[in-house]
Amino acid sequence: MSSLEPSRRDTRLDSYIDQYADRTASMTVSAVRALFSVANRPEVVSLAGGMPNIADLPLKDLGASFDQLIQTKGIQAMQYGSGQGELFMREHIVDVMAEEAVHANADDVVITCGSQQALDLVTRIFVNPGDVVLCEAPSYVGALGTFNAYQADIHHVAMDEHGLIPSAIRDAVTALRAAGKHVKFLYTIPNFNNPTGITQPVERRKEILAVAQELSLLIVEDNPYGLLTIEGEPLPALRSMDPGVIYLGSFSKTFAPGFRIGWVLAPHAVRERLVIAQEAAVLSPPVFSQFAIANYLENFDWRAQIVNFREMYRARRDATLQGLADHMPPTATWTHPTGGFFVWLTLPEGLDSQALLARAVNERVAYVPGNAFYADGFGSRNMRLSYCFPTPERIYEGTRRLGKVIRDELEMRETFGLPATDTPHTPVIGPAPDLS
Amino acid sequence: MSSLEPSRRDTRLDSYIDQYADRTASMTVSAVRALFSVANRPEVVSLAGGMPNIADLPLKDLGASFDQLIQTKGIQAMQYGSGQGELFMREHIVDVMAEEAVHANADDVVITCGSQQALDLVTRIFVNPGDVVLCEAPSYVGALGTFNAYQADIHHVAMDEHGLIPSAIRDAVTALRAAGKHVKFLYTIPNFNNPTGITQPVERRKEILAVAQELSLLIVEDNPYGLLTIEGEPLPALRSMDPGVIYLGSFSKTFAPGFRIGWVLAPHAVRERLVIAQEAAVLSPPVFSQFAIANYLENFDWRAQIVNFREMYRARRDATLQGLADHMPPTATWTHPTGGFFVWLTLPEGLDSQALLARAVNERVAYVPGNAFYADGFGSRNMRLSYCFPTPERIYEGTRRLGKVIRDELEMRETFGLPATDTPHTPVIGPAPDLS
Repeated sequence: MSSLEPSRRDTRLDSYIDQYADRTASMTVSAVRALFSVANRPEVVSLAGGMPNIADLPLKDLGASFDQLIQTKGIQAMQYGSGQGELFMREHIVDVMAEEAVHANADDVVITCGSQQALDLVTRIFVNPGDVVLCEAPSYVGALGTFNAYQADIHHVAMDEHGLIPSAIRDAVTALRAAGKHVKFLYTIPNFNNPTGITQPVERRKEILAVAQELSLLIVEDNPYGLLTIEGEPLPALRSMDPGVIYLGSFSKTFAPGFRIGWVLAPHAVRERLVIAQEAAVLSPPVFSQFAIANYLENFDWRAQIVNFREMYRARRDATLQGLADHMPPTATWTHPTGGFFVWLTLPEGLDSQALLARAVNERVAYVPGNAFYADGFGSRNMRLSYCFPTPERIYEGTRRLGKVIRDELEMRETFGLPATDTPHTPVIGPAPDLS
Repeated sequence: MSSLEPSRRDTRLDSYIDQYADRTASMTVSAVRALFSVANRPEVVSLAGGMPNIADLPLKDLGASFDQLIQTKGIQAMQYGSGQGELFMREHIVDVMAEEAVHANADDVVITCGSQQALDLVTRIFVNPGDVVLCEAPSYVGALGTFNAYQADIHHVAMDEHGLIPSAIRDAVTALRAAGKHVKFLYTIPNFNNPTGITQPVERRKEILAVAQELSLLIVEDNPYGLLTIEGEPLPALRSMDPGVIYLGSFSKTFAPGFRIGWVLAPHAVRERLVIAQEAAVLSPPVFSQFAIANYLENFDWRAQIVNFREMYRARRDATLQGLADHMPPTATWTHPTGGFFVWLTLPEGLDSQALLARAVNERVAYVPGNAFYADGFGSRNMRLSYCFPTPERIYEGTRRLGKVIRDELEMRETFGLPATDTPHTPVIGPAPDLS
């Protein structure tokens, strides 16, 4: 077995750097990645990651049921499957969606490798380089990463305390179309928006749908947290009021993310293209995972488990809000989520969340700086606080540490008469802040 | 909860048809999909699908070990994971690759959702619309589908009985570059090529690597079947002789495909971009699947299992070759694979494999017509016969049925003095033949 001279190979390697596809220019490191390493350091209270707390799942019974699954259906569960996803899994998904008043046919569902891949496939079939995707301001960092990977032109639409502002949607689409732009879809998280925690009330949903109809604007509704309502009644999904909406769902928050099972519900013609795209992308979505989740849904009281999840997250949300009330300076403000995982904090004027992060980590608390959630450099006075993973006690302590960092910074600025940090509007999906 | 009038929605839906991205024009139904339905009809001997036979896996012991896995590592196994894939899994993959003399660092491995997704990510980071990808003639249908999804300009390079012809690579690259084309990489399956079953001897591999070096041509080596050598000694991977080669591997054939775990081994700079692309595509590859496969590799004698697989596939390969020798007309020819899953049959002059398929299915035998494996309409006299899934007895019976179909067709043509079928050179990755 011969081996070519390494040095020569290294030289040749470098020559491929200019061989990459144009789309790689907009593929830069997600802020989420570097944060994982921080979240794993035990002394840091991480309010950064979006990992659900699955510690309460019944491992003993789950283990036994997996044993049974392998012994009775192992050969099918470990074999190749359908590109669209297994029919039994799609039928279960129809039942799960019915919990949020979404009534659908299993034939219109496509299973994906997490709802992240649902975003990828929808973008793949709709977006040419330069096409516009409308997003909330701010919006999920992972969605921005996907839209960037397809060279979409991301435009943010203003939100108020009820979410997307319908007139702002109309103004944006009208202006963009007048400028000759192709606006492909509006991406929205109506329930407990990531990162703001804001929920669209029913009336607002109807207004958004009406504007979308008026404009013939496709809506992509992302609903990973919908069943995790912790205050008030669950609200009807946009898709429940309009079958033209493309709907993305996931088991990552209502069961467990490690199986990587999400889905798209789409109008039939769109669904057809999604399946072809899915076959080219992964041949079939994870088959064993589909058997595992179906096994869970069939043999466990998943609705009761979701009720447990709600109680657990409610206590964490409450600890967050109490901690912020107790520790934040009066000039800081924050949202009051009624479900999901996130609170969106606005710092006192003059402070910059990205500049503050190193100090916060030094005080053993972490968060995601707000500008990660904008494609246009905004968000420097914001941060996303996740309450999903740490215990209520740890969360409360985290807000205490964070409050100290912010108060210290304010005090120092006052003492030395420092000007407001002049934050350049850096690209948002750019290199992660150095947290080491 | 209000509901908008369905008819109005349907009208609006149609208006999205012209909204799709340009890349969807080349995303058409894979021939493999329709074949799944045929393969599932019990009366048909399917020599069509590429499903491995995993019936001999030790289900009882696997079930017990999954129980243990859930109980001891369930919380990590069901949580989000790394975009690159878990370190323990990448370390296991390094061990698996060493079986084929590929020596690598776990840091240069990226886990994917099956090696199909490895193809997708590699294409994503290298190929702009119109860029050239060189493939074997013929080549894996799923790879052609992926290259098409990225609007690659696919060019086939001639093979002989030893695989890709080095001078044909040089001629193709020289001519394409002279025409101003960007040739991004050469995609090859050196071991038991899908669909031909042909293997490149060591000397041929060295010649191919030398030509690639001379041309600064990136090679993407796909090696799903390498460990399934059933005759002679395993040959060194291209990557084992040249660290500049991008190497794709998979557990789908050496363990089980349902976990959807494949991988890419790439030079470091390329690996970095693959991870970013992977995060945008699926956030993290299936986490539970990685724990499951690691569990298998750690607690079972996977090398002995591969030896069992080899014996099992050897018997099936032998049944195929014996059946063809016994039943084919003297003017048909076929390859003699030394491993993997496939035999490539060339029909007597004048016959067309796609035109013959309906008759074959009527005689209860199925195959994949050869033109599915070409992007340029060739392959009409060829068919791929898979011996991986049915028993040797069924395979032998399948070749008998197939022989009858071919002989009947030849006889009819002779009796009626029919001209050779005038097969139009239809697009290869086009609509699947109607097999119903």
